[in-house]
Amino acid sequence: MNKFKFQSGTKVFFGANCLFDNKSEVTRLGKKAFIVTGKTSGIKSGALTDIISMLNEANIEYQIFDKIENNPSLENVKEGGAACRQSKADFIVGIGGGSPLDAAKAIAILAVNDIEPIQLIKNQFTQKPLPIAAIPTTAGTGSEVTAASILTIPEYETKMSFVHEDVFPKAAFLDAKYTESMTRDIAVNTAIDAMSHAIEGYLNKIASTMSDVFALEALEIFGACIENLCEEKFDSETREKLLYASMLAGLTIAQTGTTIAHGMGYSLTYFKDIPHGKANGLLLAEYLRYNNEAAQGRVQAVLKALNLISIDDFEKIMNRLIRNDIDFTREELKKYSSLAVKQKSTAKNLRSTSEEDMYRIMEKSLIDRGTH
Amino acid sequence: MNKFKFQSGTKVFFGANCLFDNKSEVTRLGKKAFIVTGKTSGIKSGALTDIISMLNEANIEYQIFDKIENNPSLENVKEGGAACRQSKADFIVGIGGGSPLDAAKAIAILAVNDIEPIQLIKNQFTQKPLPIAAIPTTAGTGSEVTAASILTIPEYETKMSFVHEDVFPKAAFLDAKYTESMTRDIAVNTAIDAMSHAIEGYLNKIASTMSDVFALEALEIFGACIENLCEEKFDSETREKLLYASMLAGLTIAQTGTTIAHGMGYSLTYFKDIPHGKANGLLLAEYLRYNNEAAQGRVQAVLKALNLISIDDFEKIMNRLIRNDIDFTREELKKYSSLAVKQKSTAKNLRSTSEEDMYRIMEKSLIDRGTH
Repeated sequence: MNKFKFQSGTKVFFGANCLFDNKSEVTRLGKKAFIVTGKTSGIKSGALTDIISMLNEANIEYQIFDKIENNPSLENVKEGGAACRQSKADFIVGIGGGSPLDAAKAIAILAVNDIEPIQLIKNQFTQKPLPIAAIPTTAGTGSEVTAASILTIPEYETKMSFVHEDVFPKAAFLDAKYTESMTRDIAVNTAIDAMSHAIEGYLNKIASTMSDVFALEALEIFGACIENLCEEKFDSETREKLLYASMLAGLTIAQTGTTIAHGMGYSLTYFKDIPHGKANGLLLAEYLRYNNEAAQGRVQAVLKALNLISIDDFEKIMNRLIRNDIDFTREELKKYSSLAVKQKSTAKNLRSTSEEDMYRIMEKSLIDRGTH
Repeated sequence: MNKFKFQSGTKVFFGANCLFDNKSEVTRLGKKAFIVTGKTSGIKSGALTDIISMLNEANIEYQIFDKIENNPSLENVKEGGAACRQSKADFIVGIGGGSPLDAAKAIAILAVNDIEPIQLIKNQFTQKPLPIAAIPTTAGTGSEVTAASILTIPEYETKMSFVHEDVFPKAAFLDAKYTESMTRDIAVNTAIDAMSHAIEGYLNKIASTMSDVFALEALEIFGACIENLCEEKFDSETREKLLYASMLAGLTIAQTGTTIAHGMGYSLTYFKDIPHGKANGLLLAEYLRYNNEAAQGRVQAVLKALNLISIDDFEKIMNRLIRNDIDFTREELKKYSSLAVKQKSTAKNLRSTSEEDMYRIMEKSLIDRGTH
């Protein structure tokens, strides 16, 4: 057996009404809440209304910061950090998809540390971050159970992550009803993001017996949901399964981190505004073919867990779920691969990866196949 | 899907040399360590020598308390709590099997709370316990990843548990070399204890999709180790697997708790001094037959995970591993069942269980089969 570390810093409450059934797990966190959410996700999902009603009932003050952008920038979390500090809140409630939850982690640090946001990337802070409660409104990010936060860094023309165990949310409330407001595209893209977490956590140099348990369980559940995803049958059971699987995939990457699919995908999001999950998804079939040449056994295990026979089958599924409608030039892809190879996560890909390898994966995925 | 809560408060480091590879995870816990261990397990395992050398190197003071008895009593942890308080230690290192690790949790509380040990059972304390690092020297207890502590309470003629999230060890170091000093009987008995955790966590009213993942994974690994256990082939791979499986089983009961096999087993230990794991093991076959009548699907899943065909096969394995050489009277079993039915864990058994049911399981296991 390999050496491993296993850590999960988050108490997870899963199921219908879990937020109200476990009120004290929020109210114990402090005396004033700073609620971090996006412009619409908090309201549309119903989670913001629920948390406000709970806080009012418990006589806990709160301030709402609903300015989190998609793929939040350093500037965006800086503004949130300043507002949080000014509010004198002593805990954070993050509501939303990956963007608000990741931003909540940055804000939890910036509120009590007088640093520039870029210093987050190197964990250059000393004061313990404010405690966080997390309520996901998508089934994809897994951020509710990780210590990672992905921020957009214009200076480097990409997204970068920081990871620190003190930003594991103290509690996460996973109620599938909060994911019902997702559009079809958001539901599909975030599901692909979660699947990508499980796959990249499995085809990972630091994967362990323990992280594999979470990754394969997540993939099996996805496998059971794929047909409903393709047919857009978002019944409540499917929504619950996807939320559970995305949490398991989050537990996976909390141990392993992601690898090159995420690393390459960041550029597709940064430069072409392709949603994060879709960006990964456009690359996944070629990413699997690439890893299959060096780690066939593990790629086959991924396919088996998904209940698929071959990478071609996998590709057919992806083509039913998402389509690339954007043209890329070779020069663009060269730039993207030069950025991606610098990501820390690149070194963890199961097959050791060069900049040229990344270029080829992107070329096959985004140019050879064309738009469709 | 069922509602569930998932919590794991312990950072687990697994593998050869994990203690030295992660020194800072111990040294960050405080300035003076109170080392809680048994009369022999700390020394024999080598873990005590290792931790002392590490603390010396880091210039961290320590005091050793090596008086933990098997199945520690309230009196025993009271003495430890007083000694810890007097030592002015600010963190605890627990080394040993379940007894020292469970005692460490009680001592962590008693050192900073001026209460009688019996108050632990009702969580009647207010000050946050000292942080704990745990080093298991058996592969059975799982205590290194749970928030539970089992103490012997002469007043009630049994063992009882308390559970509090603040006593999750902050860090656990699982190095199979520390389990090499176990005798054959201790290795077998503790392995059966761990298997029993996984089974009781699975045949449990509050089992969830999530706890099932851990339970079934643990059982599959046991299944792969059974033949080596029976043949007493304790090679290093088997030791690692058993340690890993016992940790997974610990994660299972950290979510679910145990049920009636443990509840009944406590009397066998309290009154007849039968080692804890063996006590459960003597009852497990009949316990499975009992549950099989109400929950056949799940009992069959247990057998399948263990790679066994039937409960009779399971019984044959247990007969190879342990034998009952103690006579019991019906009066004794009546008393034991009257005690066991009062355990909080009884209500969680998948098949609702009466005192009479417990009596019958014990009678079949301990009288009808006789000593052998």
